[in-house]
Formats: sequence, structure tokens, C-alpha cells
Amino acid sequence: MSDQPDVTVDTAKLQRFGEALLTALGVPAADAALTLETLIEADLRGVESHGVAHLVDFYVRRIQQGHVNPRPTMTIDERAPATATLDADRGLGFIAAHRAMDLAIRKAEACGAAFVAVRNSTHYGAGFHYALKAACAGMVGLSVTTGGNIVVPPGGRKRTYGANVISVAAPTRRSFCFVLDGSTSAVAGGKLEIARRRGLAIPEGWALDEFGHATTDPHSFLRGGGLLPLGGAPHLGAYKGFGLAIFADVLSGVLSGMGASLSLPGNGAAAHCLAALRVDAFLPFDQYLVGMEAMIDGLKAAERQQGVSEILIPGELEARLEQERRARGAVPLHAAIIAGYRAAAAELGVPFDLT
Amino acid sequence: MSDQPDVTVDTAKLQRFGEALLTALGVPAADAALTLETLIEADLRGVESHGVAHLVDFYVRRIQQGHVNPRPTMTIDERAPATATLDADRGLGFIAAHRAMDLAIRKAEACGAAFVAVRNSTHYGAGFHYALKAACAGMVGLSVTTGGNIVVPPGGRKRTYGANVISVAAPTRRSFCFVLDGSTSAVAGGKLEIARRRGLAIPEGWALDEFGHATTDPHSFLRGGGLLPLGGAPHLGAYKGFGLAIFADVLSGVLSGMGASLSLPGNGAAAHCLAALRVDAFLPFDQYLVGMEAMIDGLKAAERQQGVSEILIPGELEARLEQERRARGAVPLHAAIIAGYRAAAAELGVPFDLT
Repeated sequence: MSDQPDVTVDTAKLQRFGEALLTALGVPAADAALTLETLIEADLRGVESHGVAHLVDFYVRRIQQGHVNPRPTMTIDERAPATATLDADRGLGFIAAHRAMDLAIRKAEACGAAFVAVRNSTHYGAGFHYALKAACAGMVGLSVTTGGNIVVPPGGRKRTYGANVISVAAPTRRSFCFVLDGSTSAVAGGKLEIARRRGLAIPEGWALDEFGHATTDPHSFLRGGGLLPLGGAPHLGAYKGFGLAIFADVLSGVLSGMGASLSLPGNGAAAHCLAALRVDAFLPFDQYLVGMEAMIDGLKAAERQQGVSEILIPGELEARLEQERRARGAVPLHAAIIAGYRAAAAELGVPFDLT
Repeated sequence: MSDQPDVTVDTAKLQRFGEALLTALGVPAADAALTLETLIEADLRGVESHGVAHLVDFYVRRIQQGHVNPRPTMTIDERAPATATLDADRGLGFIAAHRAMDLAIRKAEACGAAFVAVRNSTHYGAGFHYALKAACAGMVGLSVTTGGNIVVPPGGRKRTYGANVISVAAPTRRSFCFVLDGSTSAVAGGKLEIARRRGLAIPEGWALDEFGHATTDPHSFLRGGGLLPLGGAPHLGAYKGFGLAIFADVLSGVLSGMGASLSLPGNGAAAHCLAALRVDAFLPFDQYLVGMEAMIDGLKAAERQQGVSEILIPGELEARLEQERRARGAVPLHAAIIAGYRAAAAELGVPFDLT
């Protein structure tokens, strides 16, 4: 597929259009609004692999196919002051994760720290949204989720366990929060979709082909190959990526009672775990900010490789992009995504006014 | 240096010998005993980079040089039901971390989950000990620590921030716990010391030399080079390793009030954070074990690369080795370590009876 230039789309229109698609399928207006805000936030921050590109194929289609329940009855089981489990009744993962993080924040206000595990949920987009929510409340936020079963364990040759994701956010004095948001595989599956859509080869160290051999062809991955764990080869730390994935599986899949990633039925079924640590349950918030500032200053003062103008803190580039794109009120989308929107609009009787 | 065969050392004698060295320096008997038990546990599990090999250079010498306080007065500040900070008064990190994890477990019994940040501590050996302690109490354990400032940030060319470590353990029905224990650099600094001691080259992807170039020479690292973050190159996930290191720095260095790794004075000064999640604050313990078993079964059933006889769960190999070595009551030590012991024994007037 040859590459086409991206189309610039107005975010307010995108918000209304996406809400209309979801409400046409029975999603309550408030849930549709929160879902679109969350997806658009990913695109604003340049996380195109987890944003509105998936609106139709992941969310609209899965509601139509019965994999996502548009009007779930979510229930909460509170077994201890600093923990809870939330059953999402197969609702949109965005709604479940926002609700669970809200609860974790409330519990952390009382206890200092709290974890909420979520079962029977579905794909929740990027994990940073929920971790950032805690950071905006003056807390350190943690969000982990099971991912699709597309990762090969060290010593294996087929996709077996989930591209589970660990996301962390922490407030700073700067115009950005520290944000770690990464799958525990070398890359997220979405990066291979982007390469395929854009007709690009992938670097060695990302994936194995359907026969278990190293590959640079994103198509061979989509034919049934698998992603490598973060670290890549065992001597470069693949066991750490594997272990981090199991850590995410334990917190989300196992503690929620749903089952680890490899036990899940696919079609976006997911378990999550959201945690919040209230900073001033450890030390005065101002003192915390001073410590963060010293860390950031120290990292930025590091001697750089030739051609590198600045050491970037994880989350910094994304915050900068978000400011620019919010000011413009627009995000770039690949033409194929727009074509998918047009078709879905016609199918669901929703007016199409994005371009 | 040419390689010599390892010497097999009786663990009971090693325990007594190490205790004698530490008590000769003023460490209370109970603290010396717990320190040696912890160090020997690392060797029993094959973690030779974090075991008794460092007894003299890290612990004995640092007590002699005044970097480690042999008789600290540790204090605890409990600001919320599920959190606390512990000031270790520059005592041995082993004692501080065991005490902090004991407190986290006690708080998690009440609240379901708890975090204890530790400041003014020192090198605590391997992180798995403390996470395993929670796992043995029916909890998911987490232990993070700052490490020495030997890691190069993405885009940098000099060692700048800490080889911070993330350790996680979770109970299973099997004869092993799940144990993730890895530095957030591609490898721990200890692996380069082992390569140097054994006269081996290191793989590409571990380190940069003192000029910021890729190297396979462990000596050039020790001359001032730096370790690469987990992931190695930016396109292979180095930003994830970097972000995980900052996560560990935030929990341990910043939340404890001590400062992130790059703010620490060196000589083993360290901050930690210990957390425990009580499984039955989320779901019945039996149901948890069933979920873990399904995960382990599924991973073990993965199709394997040729020549691989078994998919190993992180922590499995170490538990197997520990069983064997405990049965034999002995661990292998490099001859250079024994020579160092002999010299320290003579210096401190402690009888040497290990070989």
C-alpha cells in the first residue's frame, strides 16, 4: 500500500462525530463523550497507535458483534480500605478504567495508596490517560492492562501471551508530567499496523514471523507472527520484559479474577489494574516537587550524543505536541481512517462532516 | 585476569564467618545474621552478582569508611494507613528493607495494600528477597530501589542516572514463586564485574565506553563508560527502560524524600520502596492460585524454539537452584572472593575456616 498524506481533522468535529457513532449503537451520551475525549487525547499527544484510528474497527465493530456491551452494569466489590475490584460487564474499557481510577484516587485520599483491579473489561486505549488522571490529582498513578496475545515468550516461537502495558505518571513543576506508557513487548502491536498502513519495513528485534524466525516484514507478523518481549533477546533482557508482562498480568488479570492475558477470549476482552499513591501520604508535596525537579534537571544536564539537542523526559514530547495540537484544535489522520469513518457513518445513518 | 575454578563453600560456615566480620565492626548480632542470610540466599539462587561476593568490598569496607552506619537508629513516619516512610539512618540496606517490607505486610493486612518508602538507606543486595517475603505471606510483593549512577539516558553519552531495580514476586501453587528481579538497565552492573573477573567480553547492547561509543569490553565500562537502559536503542524500547528507571526513582528516591538516584552521594547510598498487595483483598486466595496456574500452564504449553526444552517462568530456575544448593549446603565462589575474605579476616582478627 502506497503512503498518502495525512488529513487534518478538527477535534471538536471528531468528538461530535465519534459520539454520534457510539450513541447510534446504544452507548449512553456521557460514556460516548468520555470515550471520544480519551481517544482524541491520545491523538493530541501523538499516540496514533491508540487513538481514534481504532474508533471503528475496535469499538464500533465490537459493539456490533456483541463483544462490547454498550450499556453495561458495572459493579464494585470493596474487600479492604485500599483495594477493590470492579466488574465492567464487558463495557467500554475507557469507562471502566476512568471509574476504577476515580475510585483508586478516592481510596488513596483516605488510605494514602490504593489499587482497583478491573475484570470483564475491554480494550481501554492507551494506559497513560488513567495514570495522568492520578497525577493531575497530586498522586503517582499506575495503570496496567492485559493486551492481545501476540507476544512470544523467551524460548518460544509463537505468539502466546499478552502485549500487556505498564503506564505510570507523576506530577512535576514543569509543563509536563512524567509519563511512562509502554507495552512490555519491544513495541506495541499498533506500531506494526502503522508500518503496514504506511508500507514500511520494521526494525529487527521487534517481531518473529509465523515460523518463529526474526523478521522485518510487518505483514509476516500479521500473518501470525509474534512480538518479542521488551529487551528482545534473552542476553539483552528479554526475561525482564517477560517478567514485567507477567507482573501486569498478575495485577490485572489474576487479581481481578478474570484470568491472565493468555486465558482471555480475544476480541478486546481485557483486565486492568489502576493504582494511585497520594504524594503527601509520604512527604510534603512541595518537597516532592523539589525532588522531581532535581531529577529532571540532572537528566537534562547529561552529556549528549552528537546531534541530540536535548535529553527528553518520558512524557515531555507528548505534552509539547498536545499543547500545539490543542492550540490548533486539530489532529492528523491517515486517509484510510477517514475512509473507514465515511463507510461507518453511511452504515449507521450518522452525518459525515469531518472533511 | 585468567579464570580459575570456583571454590565450593559451606553455607553454615559462610554465615558464621560473615556474621563475625560484621559484628567485629559493631553490627548487632541479629542484623549481621539477617544480612548474611539475605546475601547467602542470593548465592543459593544463583544471583552471584548480588550475593556474598560483595561482603567485603560493599559492606565491610563501607562500614569502615563511615558510609554505612553499623548501629543505626531507624525511624518510621506513618502519615496514612497504607503508607509510611522509614529513615534508615545510613544502616545496612538489608535491615532497612526487611523492616520496611514487614511494615508494608502489616499495613496490607489491615488495608489490603501498602507502600513503605525508605530514605537514608544503603545497598540492599538483590531486590527479590523483599518481594519474596511478601509472596511467602500470601501477597504480591514489590520492591524498587535506586542503584549506582551508571546508566546513560537515551540520547546521552555518559553515565548519569541509577541502575534502579524493580523486583516483583507472587505466590503460586508450584514449588516456585513468580519472581521478576531486574535492573532497569539492559543488565546490572554486577554482570560486567563478573565478565571482568572471568576475563570475558560483553555482548553489544549492554554498555557504552567512556567516550559514549558502543563497547564489548567490560574494562572500558569500568573506566567510566555507562550501561544502556533496558531495550538498548531508542527504536527497541530504550525509552521504556528509561521510564521504568524513573518510576523506580519516583517511588524510592523522590517519595522517600531522599532524592532520585542521580542526586545520591554514591558509596552505596540508596532509597527503596517496598509494597505489598494482599491477594484476598481482591479475590479468594484459591481463586487467585487457579488463575496463576492457568497462566503458568499456558506459558509452559507455548511452542518452543528448537533446542529449548522448557519455557521457564521468571523465578523458576532460581528456585530449582536454591533447592539443590540448600540440599548440598554449599555455594560456589570465585577464588578472588575467597582471597578477599582471607585478607579481611586477618585484618579484623576473625578466624578464617572457609576452605
